[in-house]
Amino acid sequence: MPVPDEQLFPHATGNAISTVEAHKEPQELIFYAGWFCPFVQRSWIVLEEKGIPYQYKEVNPYKKEKHFLDINPKGLVPAVEYHGKALYESLVLCEFFEDAYPEHKPSILPGDAYTKAHARLWVDFVGKAFVPAYMRLIMAQGEEKQDEARAELYDALRKFAAQVKGPYFLGEEFSLVDVAIVPWITRDHVPAEHRGYSREAVSDEWKRYADHVEQRESVLKTKSDKDKYADIYGRYLRDEAQSEAAKAVRAGRVIP
Amino acid sequence: MPVPDEQLFPHATGNAISTVEAHKEPQELIFYAGWFCPFVQRSWIVLEEKGIPYQYKEVNPYKKEKHFLDINPKGLVPAVEYHGKALYESLVLCEFFEDAYPEHKPSILPGDAYTKAHARLWVDFVGKAFVPAYMRLIMAQGEEKQDEARAELYDALRKFAAQVKGPYFLGEEFSLVDVAIVPWITRDHVPAEHRGYSREAVSDEWKRYADHVEQRESVLKTKSDKDKYADIYGRYLRDEAQSEAAKAVRAGRVIP
Repeated sequence: MPVPDEQLFPHATGNAISTVEAHKEPQELIFYAGWFCPFVQRSWIVLEEKGIPYQYKEVNPYKKEKHFLDINPKGLVPAVEYHGKALYESLVLCEFFEDAYPEHKPSILPGDAYTKAHARLWVDFVGKAFVPAYMRLIMAQGEEKQDEARAELYDALRKFAAQVKGPYFLGEEFSLVDVAIVPWITRDHVPAEHRGYSREAVSDEWKRYADHVEQRESVLKTKSDKDKYADIYGRYLRDEAQSEAAKAVRAGRVIP
Repeated sequence: MPVPDEQLFPHATGNAISTVEAHKEPQELIFYAGWFCPFVQRSWIVLEEKGIPYQYKEVNPYKKEKHFLDINPKGLVPAVEYHGKALYESLVLCEFFEDAYPEHKPSILPGDAYTKAHARLWVDFVGKAFVPAYMRLIMAQGEEKQDEARAELYDALRKFAAQVKGPYFLGEEFSLVDVAIVPWITRDHVPAEHRGYSREAVSDEWKRYADHVEQRESVLKTKSDKDKYADIYGRYLRDEAQSEAAKAVRAGRVIP
């Protein structure tokens, strides 16, 4: 029997379709993506923000093609092929786009060294505190475990929201901190429908921030239909997902 | 009863004493450190590499002083105070030193965008694959669990060693990838004595790399006596350590 994730809807939907269509032509930079993946969306947002020329290639991570595995043996998306060499890891890619295309604005990291470090600290917080807590809530079975996971997620989000200058994390400028967290905001109808989560219940600051950041043009342009995200998350909600991230959360390991 | 970690030896020993002594005067940058902590050593190595003026302050993380907690509520070391504001997280600090003191050479990140991203990928690998595997081996109780943890660690180290250009990770230049991993090489007499680890058993490439990188001057200058490290690790070897990292490993959570 195929693992449930193999039944993945094969391509982007909604707003994201036109973005995919606009990036079919060969380019120096090939972006290996999965329309459904929040880590992919991070890197995709930065490509769109900066107007970098790229070719979009959809990869089903459960049916990986030989060329993709040849250049990227780890096999995870997002990945890029750049002059025949591969790079991967969503945040490494975001910083790579910044470094390799300095003439493409806006910059997603502030110029001031202290503010840049402050931004990196909160990107780190999103990866270490927020994402695992979000996944544990989605995957938690039974009311008691769900209550515990939701409390842990709210705690992380309140710490984050208390640092938001508004309207974006660092103030007027959209940055890597917003990029790091917004894909899960785009998908938070799933915990809202199935795990008793609400933006309001976290805090007014969080709701104001989330309502604003999800409307950023680059976020909307890389967004698929809500119901297609919901289909994907059904496997997580039943704790049946077989993605590397899901297996890591289940085993109490670092999300690779 | 005090938790065992509170019995911490109070200051640096060995080579590191003279480095601490040389950094007692007030400076614009205050470095909050713990002589025993491998994460601290990462940032300390970069300060020494670049010859940045800093004031060293020893913090017992189990008896934190008010001013330290005021500027750094998370309370972890390493941390810096810079113009009255705090920053923390070892790798964020390393990148901050690079950004805030561009005139201080050598640079610990390559100038070429692709190589820089490649370096960041392997720094990420050290944090996600190597450090947790190392800690699980140290903390594993019973032969079976130790064998399993050692195999997992060797697997991570072989993947890493296969990427080493030599003599340093990226070739002739010492970089953030070396910084990220070397504190655990400096301390690997502990798993060697207690967990059946040896550099040779990993691979020839790993032994050659480890033997070379531990002799870097900035590494030697920030190194305390072997027996003092061994005292600290006693608590980990008996799975009694109460550090945040130890608690995270025990709970199957991300090391904060």
